[in-house]
Amino acid sequence: MNQPYPSQLLERAVSEFSRLPSIGRKTALRLVLHLLRQPEEDVEQFASAVLRMKQEVKYCAVCHNISDTEVCPICANPRRDKSLICVVENVQDVMAIENTQQYNGLYHVLGGVISPMDGIGPSDLEIASLAERIAEGGVKEVILALSSTMEGDTTNFYISRKLQAFDVNLSIIARGISVGDELEYTDEVTLGRSILNRTPFNGKSQ
Amino acid sequence: MNQPYPSQLLERAVSEFSRLPSIGRKTALRLVLHLLRQPEEDVEQFASAVLRMKQEVKYCAVCHNISDTEVCPICANPRRDKSLICVVENVQDVMAIENTQQYNGLYHVLGGVISPMDGIGPSDLEIASLAERIAEGGVKEVILALSSTMEGDTTNFYISRKLQAFDVNLSIIARGISVGDELEYTDEVTLGRSILNRTPFNGKSQ
Repeated sequence: MNQPYPSQLLERAVSEFSRLPSIGRKTALRLVLHLLRQPEEDVEQFASAVLRMKQEVKYCAVCHNISDTEVCPICANPRRDKSLICVVENVQDVMAIENTQQYNGLYHVLGGVISPMDGIGPSDLEIASLAERIAEGGVKEVILALSSTMEGDTTNFYISRKLQAFDVNLSIIARGISVGDELEYTDEVTLGRSILNRTPFNGKSQ
Repeated sequence: MNQPYPSQLLERAVSEFSRLPSIGRKTALRLVLHLLRQPEEDVEQFASAVLRMKQEVKYCAVCHNISDTEVCPICANPRRDKSLICVVENVQDVMAIENTQQYNGLYHVLGGVISPMDGIGPSDLEIASLAERIAEGGVKEVILALSSTMEGDTTNFYISRKLQAFDVNLSIIARGISVGDELEYTDEVTLGRSILNRTPFNGKSQ
């Protein structure tokens, strides 16, 4: 396909969009032509929102979550239980757990999981700072809420070793069949684990 | 869902992205977090490419295609056949036809099709300027290459009436079964038309 773009400016904008994940050149062109049809103020607003976000967003000094302030609203909230730390991989995970409205403790965002394949070792993650937080005292329980993958499991194991020296309870989020799942369609690894990790039945739906 | 975004800056960027067509809030968040992980220069480049495109892109004074210059490269190209004008709906259509490498004439971009439902009448489109181009002389054939929809057909009909006064041949791109299509899966309207509009068989694949 030789250069079919009628404009260099258009092509550059399309190229920039198509560098984003899951955006191909066709989608990029559609998005760019959409922006071209919008009023100039709207496009300015779009560009400035993206740029300001990149330039001004901070990471919470305590939990490394994204924040507009030195300490994020969750860590700064006096009504949250400071004796509980939930360890997650990234910002999306914090948002997913917050959306459940079932958790009132604090977080610790690792920034990834240990993955030798991708060249990510423990020192690339916020694991040392987790140990420091616990060393400061006041934390009773650390909940491991990483993905149920090999890399997640490796990271869980590494963290458990790092925290051995501290007087803190370590727990891991429950793994089992999803709520609403039919047994016959559940994969056998999950089903096997959910039998091994069965919990006492108290007569209510759990 | 109460406000789960840890940062106003992040939320604003996500909102801007999710205003783009086919981008939901989940995708927008993924794109924004991707940009957040990129070097600042890259994000600056992204924002400026989009903004410059909006601010500086022109429309060709002759065919109304997108252009960096007063007259677009296609209209300015001395090797293109100026006696042939292909009428299309938008810029993407020009690019699609250019990609076929089967057409060596000029274009005329209408900027849409007549659609009373969307409040688009003939005066919102570049139809008067098409008549002016033909009035200037030198054009032998006008090819109608609009979508095969009710709106496209209405627009074709309207243009044909407007051009009646001129000594110019009017043609329309062929409609029929797609190359590679199996007959049993072709919709009956297309199949019916392709039988009515059959062409002489010359022994070669067409």
